[in-house]
Amino acid sequence: MKLKILGCYSATPRALNNTTSQVLEIANHMFLIDCGEGTQVQLRKHKVKFNRIKHIFISHLHGDHFFGLVGLISTFRLLTRETDLHIYGPKGIKEVVTLQMKLADSWTNFKLIFHELTTKTSELIFEDETIQVHTIPLNHRVYTNGYLFQEKEGNRKIDINLVEEANIDVAYYRKLAQGFDVVNEDGILIKNESVTKAGKKPKSYAFCSDTQYKEDIVPIISNVDVLYHESTFLEKHAHLAEKTKHSTAKEAASIAKQANVGTLLLGHYSTRYDSLKAFKEEAKQVFENVKLSKDGKAFKF
Amino acid sequence: MKLKILGCYSATPRALNNTTSQVLEIANHMFLIDCGEGTQVQLRKHKVKFNRIKHIFISHLHGDHFFGLVGLISTFRLLTRETDLHIYGPKGIKEVVTLQMKLADSWTNFKLIFHELTTKTSELIFEDETIQVHTIPLNHRVYTNGYLFQEKEGNRKIDINLVEEANIDVAYYRKLAQGFDVVNEDGILIKNESVTKAGKKPKSYAFCSDTQYKEDIVPIISNVDVLYHESTFLEKHAHLAEKTKHSTAKEAASIAKQANVGTLLLGHYSTRYDSLKAFKEEAKQVFENVKLSKDGKAFKF
Repeated sequence: MKLKILGCYSATPRALNNTTSQVLEIANHMFLIDCGEGTQVQLRKHKVKFNRIKHIFISHLHGDHFFGLVGLISTFRLLTRETDLHIYGPKGIKEVVTLQMKLADSWTNFKLIFHELTTKTSELIFEDETIQVHTIPLNHRVYTNGYLFQEKEGNRKIDINLVEEANIDVAYYRKLAQGFDVVNEDGILIKNESVTKAGKKPKSYAFCSDTQYKEDIVPIISNVDVLYHESTFLEKHAHLAEKTKHSTAKEAASIAKQANVGTLLLGHYSTRYDSLKAFKEEAKQVFENVKLSKDGKAFKF
Repeated sequence: MKLKILGCYSATPRALNNTTSQVLEIANHMFLIDCGEGTQVQLRKHKVKFNRIKHIFISHLHGDHFFGLVGLISTFRLLTRETDLHIYGPKGIKEVVTLQMKLADSWTNFKLIFHELTTKTSELIFEDETIQVHTIPLNHRVYTNGYLFQEKEGNRKIDINLVEEANIDVAYYRKLAQGFDVVNEDGILIKNESVTKAGKKPKSYAFCSDTQYKEDIVPIISNVDVLYHESTFLEKHAHLAEKTKHSTAKEAASIAKQANVGTLLLGHYSTRYDSLKAFKEEAKQVFENVKLSKDGKAFKF
């Protein structure tokens, strides 16, 4: 699982601070999460092969999370893309994108498929053989969802020596990989665990931005490998976090601790702070394994 | 008259190529012309005091000319701007901006005044004591206007020695500056030209992008000091210019020559060309005084 941070600052893009956007590579997918103004430039700058993106997940319709979307779609059009593009986001996202295309009299050659979200409970919005994506209902000034990406249990690894010893026909190997017990050539039932080992542990990633401290997301994101949780402010500005429905680094860490996540990744920093060190220090007082997202930084989990 | 090029490339923004946007300082105004994605970052990068902008002129609703507008407006809001902001552009611009503000549930504290354009003949759209702004109807794939900025004749300069010799009361000095003849203390009519000199020559700037070669703009822009005319292509790609309703450098130069402008400024280059030198060379074969716009370049005319 690879994560590339294209932008991790709040409010407005600046020369050195990009607004929210990330590329998640998981289970052979390349997912784009949020798309602030200038995201397409960040994709180019960081050499992301962005034609591979087939699914874009937008958390909410504040500009710093989606003003780059229509530009990216236009660029896909100019690059003569033909592959379908799925866009997940709050109701209204279709109208705003299509209105701009209508005014520009420029329609895409590829299918643009909108999945508009309205529910306030976690729902499954994408699934294939390898992965599931659920929404994480958040609490912000407008309707907002985080997204939970969970790889499915992979195939079990067959121990070829044990399988041959057990006298199992090759035709059953696929069943074994899928975790089933099988009957061998002598008519005896062979327990799956006796001839296979667990496959690669499935990875999971939860993206939670923007949100006020919201404890009821804990059961949804519990035990994820990586939690990105917004930390717009430090505790000394907790009153601003409350007023603007954002979180502090300490609050993000508290959620991480309760959900027993592997790694907490902070982001969506207000540009009022000169250094990000204090965010890490504050979070570490509550939860040990904290990392800081930074524009352009790539993580491998 | 100062002109700062924030972006002068066509189609899509890249790490080193910004799409169309310019800041024109003329007659104590700071006008923003077009606003491609990332314009607000360019304004910061080039240290433009952008709170001074009170009028934004959008040529047409293709993304490379206006996808940065809503982000800039949002940023003005975050910076707690209070001054009115006037936006001139094709019909539809109000709907697309206000829809995005509605979806983000974030309204401006300042007045946002839209001047939607629909006519296909040149019209006066802004005027005060110092300047007039007219549209320049262009011919592109969607409804498009260029803009003509013309300083008004400034006050005449009073020659204080001659005025005193002519025995003119101080109360009439303002009238003299405005160009009127006055009666002196002895009841004699004093011709204005005998005691004043011409003031500063008024400057003018014509912005023409995007457009196919269109000869009938010549009378509108005739004798302007500076003409910015798009040159998306070189003559070797004239077939593409025709197909996409853009101009070549040679065509831009031909317009400049016919309109007898002072300086021709080229721009809106396709990113297919490695170097801009050929644009200048091609245009110079038709019109001598050619300059190349480049991202971040400042001109003083």
